Amino acid sequence: MVDDASRRTAGLIALDWGTTSFRGWLLDDAGTVVDRVRSADGTLQVSERADSSGERAAAFDAAFARLCGHWLQQRADLPVIAAGMVGSNHGWAEAGYLDVPADLADLADHLTRVPGTRVHIVPGLRVPGPDPDVMRGEEVQLVGALAETERPSTVVLPGTHSKWVDLAGARVTTFTTAMTGELYGLLLRDSILARLATEPAGPAGPAGDEVSAAFSRGLDVEAARGDERGLAALLFTARTFVMAGRLDGADVADYVSGLLVGDEVRHAVRGIPADVVAVCGSRPVASRYRIALERHGATVRLVDEDAAARGLWQVALDAALVPAPATRTTEELLP
Amino acid sequence: MVDDASRRTAGLIALDWGTTSFRGWLLDDAGTVVDRVRSADGTLQVSERADSSGERAAAFDAAFARLCGHWLQQRADLPVIAAGMVGSNHGWAEAGYLDVPADLADLADHLTRVPGTRVHIVPGLRVPGPDPDVMRGEEVQLVGALAETERPSTVVLPGTHSKWVDLAGARVTTFTTAMTGELYGLLLRDSILARLATEPAGPAGPAGDEVSAAFSRGLDVEAARGDERGLAALLFTARTFVMAGRLDGADVADYVSGLLVGDEVRHAVRGIPADVVAVCGSRPVASRYRIALERHGATVRLVDEDAAARGLWQVALDAALVPAPATRTTEELLP
Repeated sequence: MVDDASRRTAGLIALDWGTTSFRGWLLDDAGTVVDRVRSADGTLQVSERADSSGERAAAFDAAFARLCGHWLQQRADLPVIAAGMVGSNHGWAEAGYLDVPADLADLADHLTRVPGTRVHIVPGLRVPGPDPDVMRGEEVQLVGALAETERPSTVVLPGTHSKWVDLAGARVTTFTTAMTGELYGLLLRDSILARLATEPAGPAGPAGDEVSAAFSRGLDVEAARGDERGLAALLFTARTFVMAGRLDGADVADYVSGLLVGDEVRHAVRGIPADVVAVCGSRPVASRYRIALERHGATVRLVDEDAAARGLWQVALDAALVPAPATRTTEELLP
Repeated sequence: MVDDASRRTAGLIALDWGTTSFRGWLLDDAGTVVDRVRSADGTLQVSERADSSGERAAAFDAAFARLCGHWLQQRADLPVIAAGMVGSNHGWAEAGYLDVPADLADLADHLTRVPGTRVHIVPGLRVPGPDPDVMRGEEVQLVGALAETERPSTVVLPGTHSKWVDLAGARVTTFTTAMTGELYGLLLRDSILARLATEPAGPAGPAGDEVSAAFSRGLDVEAARGDERGLAALLFTARTFVMAGRLDGADVADYVSGLLVGDEVRHAVRGIPADVVAVCGSRPVASRYRIALERHGATVRLVDEDAAARGLWQVALDAALVPAPATRTTEELLP
């Protein structure tokens, strides 16, 4: 008998609620995504209207009802699991951290329930010691990434603040953050380079997993000159190349991206074995990291950004927020 | 006979007219600064009201008259010499570039006179070839710096866009630019680090040539970890240290400055002999570069930022815009 989607019922609401964005998924009782919402109602925007922790909780209640209330009409007692800055001290409820080294399976034992709700928040991870670091939200992407790919020794989660995570099996040994995405945004929005950058005239960028020639050129220049000149000098070459007629304004953004990603990756790979590296993120950006990593001899696996939904499902299963789906019999799997 | 200031008359108006700032000096006929003006009427602000080159010239005429017109009441035919972005293609008149290697004495042979005025603009310097670069305004600071200090092999001009200039005597062999100051401004104005930084509670910073402990800590962290982690990761430590209770919000700005200046200097000294380095700039910033350079074994000379006025006077003398002051006899120099 074939799998019959109509037989399934809603099983879980999963939220990745970060500083500046909200992603919600409705999963059925087998963990398959059946609906999704996306919004710019990040925790920063929600919490800035609130003056006390009580007001803040009410603001998060209201935002959640507005964004996901329609899913609860089908089944009012749906469990909810959430990760990200929603668990920070400016979030819905403070969900703490697990110190690394930490097994990802332990996340499920440390959920924080938002008082008076069915919402459970996943703790973040923290690096103690001389090189402290923190993550919130990326830990469930790690869980999802490990479910999808052969066990990597390193997972990169590119973004505003890229995370480089060292793993031994499903155990996070340590991680570091690079604010590459934020630097890119600042430079292309407000710097002297922003005034040089023009919109590309043709179709937007290469298709699929390719990267643009301007991005590759940024990698080339960084590889050849980065150790000698430093990032602040390399970035200025975007201006001097444009002034010398050797870089088109439409290529400035990709060239700067190549310099920044090249510098981040070249330094990061010094501390990791050139082994299997998983890159977890949306395609245009993830492909850029893949290309940069492959130049250093790494074997790269791309994991799509819905890893967060899979990871949240797995943590909810481990925490028994949702019943384990019945194992299908061989007959059910036959066409 | 002692030098009698009352005998002197106005000799020259000198302008350092950059993108976002205007500095003007009135010099007497011996090249001594007798009056000065400072304004935020940079070339960007003046030119943005103009739609054509004719309108632009009129806007610069008007801004100059408003800022320096009172000096011309004393002597209407005062020569004027100017350097900086005022000589760019968005300035008063385009003054071109000299390609390096170039003797600084050659600047005087390539002044551009603004049509219908007594204003002469100094050309910028340009590095041709695979690593192009440009400067406008710093070239007259170099002339002034060389007049003041023993011949350095390198001159650093810290700023929004720091210049590192290699010299052989008074010949500029090459130079590079690092956008360190601009990165600092972007990070402390708009990034996640800006939200952590608080105003210092006590008196503002150390006095004189000292630097703060937070700046030194930034240098320390960069020296220990920069090669391994890269700038985008190092900068994020300002956040993780604050979150771990190991950096005070009031120290964020100086700590970030230490990371950035440390990274710039550590890379820049790889390409220069650890010899005499002159740092030309205003005191708080120049002292930071001095400390960072001395950590790499350089012998540092500080040159104050009025080097531009001295340099403009020297170029005006070389170009015979002003008559050479009469050489004083030995008797005149006796008290």
